[in-house]
Amino acid sequence: MKIGLTPRLRRSPFYAATLRHGVKAFTVYNHMLLPLWYESPEADYLKLITDVTVWDVAAQRQVEIQGPDARDLVQYLTTRNVDKCAIGQARYTLVCNAEGGVLNDPVMLRLADDHFWLSLADNDIGLWAQAVAFERDLDVAVREPDVSPLQVQGPKSHELMTAAFGDMVRDIGYYRFVEADVEGVPLVISRTGWSGEVGYEVWLRDGSKGDWLWERLFAAGEPFGVAPAAPSQIRRIEGGLLSYGTDMDPTVNPHELNLAWLVDLDENDFIGKAALLQIQEEGPKRSLTGVRIEGDPIDSNAEHWDVSRDGHVVGVLTSCVYSPTLGANLGYVLVERAAAAAGTELVVATPDGERTAVTQPLPFVETKK
Amino acid sequence: MKIGLTPRLRRSPFYAATLRHGVKAFTVYNHMLLPLWYESPEADYLKLITDVTVWDVAAQRQVEIQGPDARDLVQYLTTRNVDKCAIGQARYTLVCNAEGGVLNDPVMLRLADDHFWLSLADNDIGLWAQAVAFERDLDVAVREPDVSPLQVQGPKSHELMTAAFGDMVRDIGYYRFVEADVEGVPLVISRTGWSGEVGYEVWLRDGSKGDWLWERLFAAGEPFGVAPAAPSQIRRIEGGLLSYGTDMDPTVNPHELNLAWLVDLDENDFIGKAALLQIQEEGPKRSLTGVRIEGDPIDSNAEHWDVSRDGHVVGVLTSCVYSPTLGANLGYVLVERAAAAAGTELVVATPDGERTAVTQPLPFVETKK
Repeated sequence: MKIGLTPRLRRSPFYAATLRHGVKAFTVYNHMLLPLWYESPEADYLKLITDVTVWDVAAQRQVEIQGPDARDLVQYLTTRNVDKCAIGQARYTLVCNAEGGVLNDPVMLRLADDHFWLSLADNDIGLWAQAVAFERDLDVAVREPDVSPLQVQGPKSHELMTAAFGDMVRDIGYYRFVEADVEGVPLVISRTGWSGEVGYEVWLRDGSKGDWLWERLFAAGEPFGVAPAAPSQIRRIEGGLLSYGTDMDPTVNPHELNLAWLVDLDENDFIGKAALLQIQEEGPKRSLTGVRIEGDPIDSNAEHWDVSRDGHVVGVLTSCVYSPTLGANLGYVLVERAAAAAGTELVVATPDGERTAVTQPLPFVETKK
Repeated sequence: MKIGLTPRLRRSPFYAATLRHGVKAFTVYNHMLLPLWYESPEADYLKLITDVTVWDVAAQRQVEIQGPDARDLVQYLTTRNVDKCAIGQARYTLVCNAEGGVLNDPVMLRLADDHFWLSLADNDIGLWAQAVAFERDLDVAVREPDVSPLQVQGPKSHELMTAAFGDMVRDIGYYRFVEADVEGVPLVISRTGWSGEVGYEVWLRDGSKGDWLWERLFAAGEPFGVAPAAPSQIRRIEGGLLSYGTDMDPTVNPHELNLAWLVDLDENDFIGKAALLQIQEEGPKRSLTGVRIEGDPIDSNAEHWDVSRDGHVVGVLTSCVYSPTLGANLGYVLVERAAAAAGTELVVATPDGERTAVTQPLPFVETKK
């Protein structure tokens, strides 16, 4: 199916480069065109797990929160203890509503005591942050800065990054970052990513330099077999990574997602805390878990599919894909808690008929750090 | 270019019907797939201005605001005087931020004293509304209801609607609506739309009945030459209708858009009022106006294009299209105020070279009511 192009669908600074490199499909993410695959989803995946790949993920927009009250606002908006995040550190966190429903699952970067980025999943959580800041009369700026990340992911990502940026890459710890100026172009370089493979992100802070950065990475990566790629449904499902809008939305809470480790119920106060305390006491009603689906390879699901146990619908399958590495159909189901116990036999209603599926804990493949 | 389909891109209740009827391209709007054209943009336009067309605009999602404090919240969020909107009336309005920038340009429907829908342009303004309601501790529910509009637009829309729903359609005034139960399916029927032609919207309040409603309209419309279509870039630009994300965003204020008539600066208080009072006093710095662009037909613009006057960039072209009816390239420019005076000669930097353009007031074609 075609996608129509209008100015409402924003173009990333790497858009021209992705066209030159043969992008074949897009989705829309945070009002921006996000490349999906080049050769094919399977071929791109093989490059990702074998060599090294560069992804245009500029659509992963930032909410920048800066000013004297920035720390207080970020703490109030997110579920983890902000004071445990050092300058130069990144942390996966959650934004919840008053009922404890998940509004976004950003990666937070702390650039200074009073300067944060929330690197976003697909919605306008900046509007939520701006409204809270305005209503609380906080001394803080909440804006979308000119910051566009590329991901460099795969087993040879360290070699590529060292070739591109030299020694400064060597000392960046997992979920840590450095600010850098390279040939006058301001960058942030982090040991983060959304692949489950070893990887980096390069955050371009000057949208006019997209071609420069893209081609610098490809020049540096040529000896390592670099290829253009995009967020891989195959690898992220193997790795148990969740996708906002697909695997979670405001009707789902962190406990149902097994993300309670992202909720710090200690001294800090944040939106949703009271609801999450109660959910913790009562226990979640549903649980998200992995499934292996029997039978021939399934391409992927474009919608949620009903999941049954003993003839009764107990929830939905949110994501699935065929893993060439594991030789199996892998997926996630969000089901009644009892149906999520490891080894439970479920029935998934695919558009092509019913399939047996057996639950197992996530991830299917451990994340490489 | 292809679009990849995942559950994150929601499907409308009319999705299956649009596929059956031959939809050829989609965009993404409010996280939902929105059909763009069937035969071709030009052929669909000719059906729209000649006969009658049915559009799946379920992606025009609603923020439902209901409860004892609903009136106060809607007034605080929007720029027009809510008390001048009767029950059963719809009004085009604006949501602004504290700086007076436009966050959304919804159509508001008042279903009861304490019950409103804001029918949205493309962003998650529900998050803004929920944060304000939460922070102000208002006694109100803010949610996305199961409400999916279809537009029935074109000179024969009245005949189609009367054939489909009978006499109740006859008395619906312009920008008025009725609630109806048809064969047990709850609907709202309004004399509204986004075409510039005479038209209606049918708001389906039961997402499981999409096929039923679509086929009922096509059965009723068969004698009138009904065709599937979608929001028409050609007709909306002829009619001077603005598209959020293309012609405006939070950096633009209502005065720059010549939408000051949507701002009631009387006794009511709302977010952005103080800033808009100041802008009104000082006068806007820029202005959006129409242009005719000389030369061969231009397909449309997928990005903003720079606009110059006497060799200096004075702004951007936000939208343009070739109008078969007027035999001219029509567009909008957002430029320094002096450059917007009618009859000003400008130069538009298209990807295929410079074109001369001459400003003229909007609309190019009067809206039919």
